[in-house]
Amino acid sequence: MGLVVQKFGGSSVANAERVFNVARTITETYKEGNEVVVVVSAQGDTTDELIEKAMEINKKPSKREMDMLLSSGEQISISLLAMAIEALGFPVISLTGWQAGMKTNSNYSIARLKKIDTERVRSELDKNNIVIVAGFQGINKYDDITTLGRGGSDTSAVALAAALHADVCQIYTDVDGVYTADPRIVKDAKKLDEISYDEMLELASLGANVLNNRSVEMAKKYNVKLMVLSSLHKAAGTIVKEVNDVEKMLVRGVTRDNDTARISLLEVEDTPGKAFSVFSLLAKHNINVDLIIQSIGRNNTKDISFTVASSNLDEALSVLNENKSVIAPKDIQWNDDVSKVSIVGAGMVTNPGVAAKMFEALYKSNINIHMIATSEIKVSVLIDRKDAERAVVAIHDEFDMAN
Amino acid sequence: MGLVVQKFGGSSVANAERVFNVARTITETYKEGNEVVVVVSAQGDTTDELIEKAMEINKKPSKREMDMLLSSGEQISISLLAMAIEALGFPVISLTGWQAGMKTNSNYSIARLKKIDTERVRSELDKNNIVIVAGFQGINKYDDITTLGRGGSDTSAVALAAALHADVCQIYTDVDGVYTADPRIVKDAKKLDEISYDEMLELASLGANVLNNRSVEMAKKYNVKLMVLSSLHKAAGTIVKEVNDVEKMLVRGVTRDNDTARISLLEVEDTPGKAFSVFSLLAKHNINVDLIIQSIGRNNTKDISFTVASSNLDEALSVLNENKSVIAPKDIQWNDDVSKVSIVGAGMVTNPGVAAKMFEALYKSNINIHMIATSEIKVSVLIDRKDAERAVVAIHDEFDMAN
Repeated sequence: MGLVVQKFGGSSVANAERVFNVARTITETYKEGNEVVVVVSAQGDTTDELIEKAMEINKKPSKREMDMLLSSGEQISISLLAMAIEALGFPVISLTGWQAGMKTNSNYSIARLKKIDTERVRSELDKNNIVIVAGFQGINKYDDITTLGRGGSDTSAVALAAALHADVCQIYTDVDGVYTADPRIVKDAKKLDEISYDEMLELASLGANVLNNRSVEMAKKYNVKLMVLSSLHKAAGTIVKEVNDVEKMLVRGVTRDNDTARISLLEVEDTPGKAFSVFSLLAKHNINVDLIIQSIGRNNTKDISFTVASSNLDEALSVLNENKSVIAPKDIQWNDDVSKVSIVGAGMVTNPGVAAKMFEALYKSNINIHMIATSEIKVSVLIDRKDAERAVVAIHDEFDMAN
Repeated sequence: MGLVVQKFGGSSVANAERVFNVARTITETYKEGNEVVVVVSAQGDTTDELIEKAMEINKKPSKREMDMLLSSGEQISISLLAMAIEALGFPVISLTGWQAGMKTNSNYSIARLKKIDTERVRSELDKNNIVIVAGFQGINKYDDITTLGRGGSDTSAVALAAALHADVCQIYTDVDGVYTADPRIVKDAKKLDEISYDEMLELASLGANVLNNRSVEMAKKYNVKLMVLSSLHKAAGTIVKEVNDVEKMLVRGVTRDNDTARISLLEVEDTPGKAFSVFSLLAKHNINVDLIIQSIGRNNTKDISFTVASSNLDEALSVLNENKSVIAPKDIQWNDDVSKVSIVGAGMVTNPGVAAKMFEALYKSNINIHMIATSEIKVSVLIDRKDAERAVVAIHDEFDMAN
């Protein structure tokens, strides 16, 4: 017996049949004697359809009105899910973001949760109701509806779990857990039973599209036990929590990220402040920089290379070209036919052989490395995109992750 | 310059083109220097689509969840309309029912407005915003979303106009005003420039589907000046207000209502309380009775005839049959192939010749009258449905309403 928060994404409730599948998962948890709070996203394509309706009318609508429009999507899914649970004969109530006390700041379309007033949810639980809460949305201090942006429903779920001191926050997805590699690339990829918050954060940001990063950060901060499960079939899933016996673990997974492009500034003058001026310029334009490498200076010049998301490449190049006189590189080169392949594992920093083993796997497969970056729990390399899948398989084998 | 409340129905905002038509009507009123509050219904078929989604999942959903679901419809239309007004370059904000302070009782699906907290709407007007309010919906004391039932958006508009002391409440419909008869039946039917609340009430309840009755009652109670206008093309419309010079006016219009069925209880025992027992029985089952006729008793029996809405006929008959032992009629007869044709006019009661003139028109057209009922401002007859259109034309001609 405990308090369980469950989160279901839009594809899990895309039609009546799936809504009933989800309803049964919920009522089974309830029947086991748990208090159940459910966070649900808008059905399947609802959000895209609403955006399309808006675009017909106004290509640049205010974000405030866009949030008003989009939040109707979850209002539809929560009431339909509640009706399905009613049909199964269980007590249930649906609550919009504002009814559930999800207080946010006023950054429409990318609002951040500031506080959750749990009074209403708590009182519905005390009435033995299953509580269905609209994910992705909240209310600001002006009583206006806000949305939390991409992955917002994960964040809603984790935040509710933290505020209600839930025993576990179950994230139902279309995969049945976190794997050592993408099972579509590596046939014998293995599901992990447990993973630490930090490892999950690295995996999420490295392209394993399981959990939204913000929600993992929040889970870590408030020590919410996360569980990643399949909404399609029953399986144990992966638990994300604080893991202490770090030494036991080494490499937990290998990921590939194709959404990346490399930019190199060649022969920049080797004076202090050059790197700062380049990256502050990009930051001013909201362009996130990932891997950064600076060559050792020679002839009073140095090369600066870094990666950005593919979608930011054009803007990054035009910003750099506009400011060419300030930065004064001899040349600006770029390549968007690259992938970032990374290994993640909390034990890595204390095992210096790990990076070498990864490079060995790539060498044996005759794959050239363009850039290397490391952190305490990951090693990333930038390689040609054509080599990426082969690299993932080779690394997975080298570390014997299937066992 | 003044404060104008405008109401647009679902068909007026059914697609992007119509949304812009409505947006232009609104911004023209705003440009003339008025404060503008707009009440809008859900787009075209949205409500039906949402009901269909619900029925796929639960044939008998709770009304609370149904209201949660349906209220999303207006949330979509208000935000889209606001986006259109933004596109035209005017300051605008959309508000849901609860944001606009529409407080109701807790009768989900048929809630009644109890109070309007105008603070938010007033403050948005003070910021020079055009204010778009979701019709048909409100919030109860538990902070749960309610809907007002059929014609609810008219009621929302009139109630807002009353609470804001608006100068006029303009109801935009798919007709361009109130006519002396249905223009589809009577080719030379004439648009009325003015009509009194009471006449409008009789016309509305008699089947002239222009304005919802509850909204007219509320307009009369709070002395809100109503204007019925076309949302499709510019025309003067009809003003509904308190009219004093009653003597000038006679018959204002003729209406037909096919949604009616007659029930006759034959040879009921002629003792006190019989009629009471019949009609209290029906009232208990929420069956509204319209025309009532009781024959003069003979042989210690009397006949009681009355009409109900066609949709209530089956239930009324089964209620009466179940209680046959109490009422003890010799026979129960019914006929749902009838129509109610009525003339309405505030001057009628002081002009005894009016009813006779109506009957004469029917006689000359060889139309048989089954029942007659009169009030201070109307005369209704029940006739065979096949004769109804001919009757409307004949009466319209007899009273020379086209001139």
